[in-house]
Amino acid sequence: MNDLIEPRLLKGFRDFLPEKEAQRLAILRKLEEVYRLFGFVPIDTPVLEYTEILLGKGGGDTDKQVYRFTDHGGRDVAMRYDLTVPFARFMAAHLAELPLPFKRWHAAKVWRGENTQRGRYREFVQVDFDIVGSDSASADVEILLLIRESMRALSIEGFSVHFAHRGLFNAFLERLGLGEGAVVVLRAIDKERKIGKEKTRELLEGTVGAENALRILEFTQREDSFRQTLAKLREAMGPGGGGEEARAAREALDRLAIIGGCLEELGCSPSFVLDPSITRGLDYYTGIVCETFLSKLPGIGSVCSGGRYNDLASLYTRQSLPGVGASIGIDRLMAAMEELDLLAHGAPSSSVLVLLLEEGLLGSCHRFAEAFRAAGIPAEVYPEKKRIAVQFAYAEKKGIPLALLFGAEEREAGRISLKDLRTRREWEGLTLENAIERAKELLR
Amino acid sequence: MNDLIEPRLLKGFRDFLPEKEAQRLAILRKLEEVYRLFGFVPIDTPVLEYTEILLGKGGGDTDKQVYRFTDHGGRDVAMRYDLTVPFARFMAAHLAELPLPFKRWHAAKVWRGENTQRGRYREFVQVDFDIVGSDSASADVEILLLIRESMRALSIEGFSVHFAHRGLFNAFLERLGLGEGAVVVLRAIDKERKIGKEKTRELLEGTVGAENALRILEFTQREDSFRQTLAKLREAMGPGGGGEEARAAREALDRLAIIGGCLEELGCSPSFVLDPSITRGLDYYTGIVCETFLSKLPGIGSVCSGGRYNDLASLYTRQSLPGVGASIGIDRLMAAMEELDLLAHGAPSSSVLVLLLEEGLLGSCHRFAEAFRAAGIPAEVYPEKKRIAVQFAYAEKKGIPLALLFGAEEREAGRISLKDLRTRREWEGLTLENAIERAKELLR
Repeated sequence: MNDLIEPRLLKGFRDFLPEKEAQRLAILRKLEEVYRLFGFVPIDTPVLEYTEILLGKGGGDTDKQVYRFTDHGGRDVAMRYDLTVPFARFMAAHLAELPLPFKRWHAAKVWRGENTQRGRYREFVQVDFDIVGSDSASADVEILLLIRESMRALSIEGFSVHFAHRGLFNAFLERLGLGEGAVVVLRAIDKERKIGKEKTRELLEGTVGAENALRILEFTQREDSFRQTLAKLREAMGPGGGGEEARAAREALDRLAIIGGCLEELGCSPSFVLDPSITRGLDYYTGIVCETFLSKLPGIGSVCSGGRYNDLASLYTRQSLPGVGASIGIDRLMAAMEELDLLAHGAPSSSVLVLLLEEGLLGSCHRFAEAFRAAGIPAEVYPEKKRIAVQFAYAEKKGIPLALLFGAEEREAGRISLKDLRTRREWEGLTLENAIERAKELLR
Repeated sequence: MNDLIEPRLLKGFRDFLPEKEAQRLAILRKLEEVYRLFGFVPIDTPVLEYTEILLGKGGGDTDKQVYRFTDHGGRDVAMRYDLTVPFARFMAAHLAELPLPFKRWHAAKVWRGENTQRGRYREFVQVDFDIVGSDSASADVEILLLIRESMRALSIEGFSVHFAHRGLFNAFLERLGLGEGAVVVLRAIDKERKIGKEKTRELLEGTVGAENALRILEFTQREDSFRQTLAKLREAMGPGGGGEEARAAREALDRLAIIGGCLEELGCSPSFVLDPSITRGLDYYTGIVCETFLSKLPGIGSVCSGGRYNDLASLYTRQSLPGVGASIGIDRLMAAMEELDLLAHGAPSSSVLVLLLEEGLLGSCHRFAEAFRAAGIPAEVYPEKKRIAVQFAYAEKKGIPLALLFGAEEREAGRISLKDLRTRREWEGLTLENAIERAKELLR
């Protein structure tokens, strides 16, 4: 006898059994419908790309996590670790073929060799949606609305989209003379939700001094309403001068005012919070930045994050491509929805099991199943003439609610029987049409 | 200025632009609905697995094409090259959790470093559907019906599913004393459709001699009808004896008779052809084998192939897992559907573009777009106050049929205008409700 190979999975990788996969597909299909209604179009890019494309100049933390190897042709290749970099390459490559502004969504797997001890997976699904080719408040609003609609489509309640303006924060740091150390500050503020205000203050003090730390924490503190927070930010920036940084600050404040006005006019302000503590660690953001929190699950962090970048594809083209977009981490979202009891349980199944009572009736059984399917009712034939108890047990294990019986007796009478396995009620002497009608009623 | 990175793709890999990706998704969604109606459930497995799992004992042609590398943890890993091997591993790993017979579908990308000169891609999408846990004629019929329904769901006409019984062919070869050289014969017959009968005869003569070559070609020749072909096969096998091979042959012939009877009773015989020249190269098939051809595109080969294997997961478990299934190569199928003019052209788009005529009206514009979406009509706002001609040009380029106009004049009157960009007809003085109703009529 041969030695068996253990059917094990790589650490950080998962099988999706029918129940989980059906849940995931249901989420993706609902999101897809939201993007369709917003006029966003689907695209796809390869899983493997030249490493040079994916890592650019490289050197970041991401690089070490990327699955990278040499292919059969001696090429240095890598598996995508997000959907943003391939999208940038895609835009540069197909600029001439795409109408700008271009709005796309992309739902696909990405891979990162992360430390799995933190409960992270190495293969996960992201859903990205972006508008490229417009640096406008309208595009910012559209992405914010899409985040809101994505949550609503999944029946998620108690979410709030926190947003701020990264350009404004950068201008503020320059005002403090901290332009150089900005990244350190951004990362510290980004951690505040996790480590708390006191730890953040200590962290900041260590790098920018006590006075600046206080000013920064005051700046990133949100007030009771959008208007009050905006007023606070205006005041913090002061009248400014005629310089670049002052101009940028004024533009950012105006942009926030327009966005806030729009959201108010749309009656959806309650879903949004102007929150200057949102900074996002990544350095390509230049405008609004946002994260989405669930009030019942604060510990889970943001389930949808994004922002504006005004130089999407600068590694690959000299054409300026301003964009704004966001990304949903489907795995984290599913975990949240599981906790909130928003996922349908049980694997999907047929609605009708046609029992096989005589081998000679196989053709009839398949004909009945076909007739149910033609009426839109999922149906299958039990494939072997086993004891009826075995066939019922299969239906029960799979959660099939109805059984169709056609044996010697029924054939004699030219009629079939339908049994509701949930109530154990049975209807005998039905025509096929009767049985389908009855099934429709029972499944309603 | 920085040096740019050329936004190139790896050879054999493709981007899917919105039109193509929408076509692909439409195909996948239609197939998904077919599987749902047959009571098949979705699963997913990781793209990366231990190489040992994917290649087993290895040594085949496939091995050289597999993307294989050493990961961060020093593991020998590979990207899946089909959906069958991961499914076998999946079944072995989750046997206790799955109701048998287990019916699943799986639509996903696979990778093979094939020679791209033959127009092959290195990344492509397969859709597999299998029934595991039943060695029955019923399961065979169900897979054949699923192939037929898959084609019908995609509006493909003039397809025919050719099938044969690999066990029968193996028995016939043993009868000729060719059990050992079977693989060579299988591969030669498998090529017949491409290289023609004469070349196949030469190929066979070279390995099994002239007499055997003639007998094999006579055996694999199909007759005018299912019945005639089956009778021919029965005759070729003769009454046989009491041995293993004769028993296998009788079982195979009986199985074919049952399948043929079922298909006839279902009224779908015209879609199926009993064709003993179908052998399939792969050595794991033990029962029926099938391929699907398009009468208008004989050169494209089979768009859906499969068969019965009675030892799916024997590398990973001692439990016998008989199965039957088939696989659709979506890329080849899309190429065929393109040639048959069965694909919707043009990228998907919104149905309504809300023009932005005054910056101050941004909130109203988004409110209108929301109202259209709430009525199920895809709508978007042009994101910048550009010249109206630019906004119309965007609608035209994207194929958006309707435009909503709301400027100073309309605001004054508290009314909006709707324009059909296809006919250039315009309706003025509409309430939002009127506009939505009108749009519904125009889009019907």
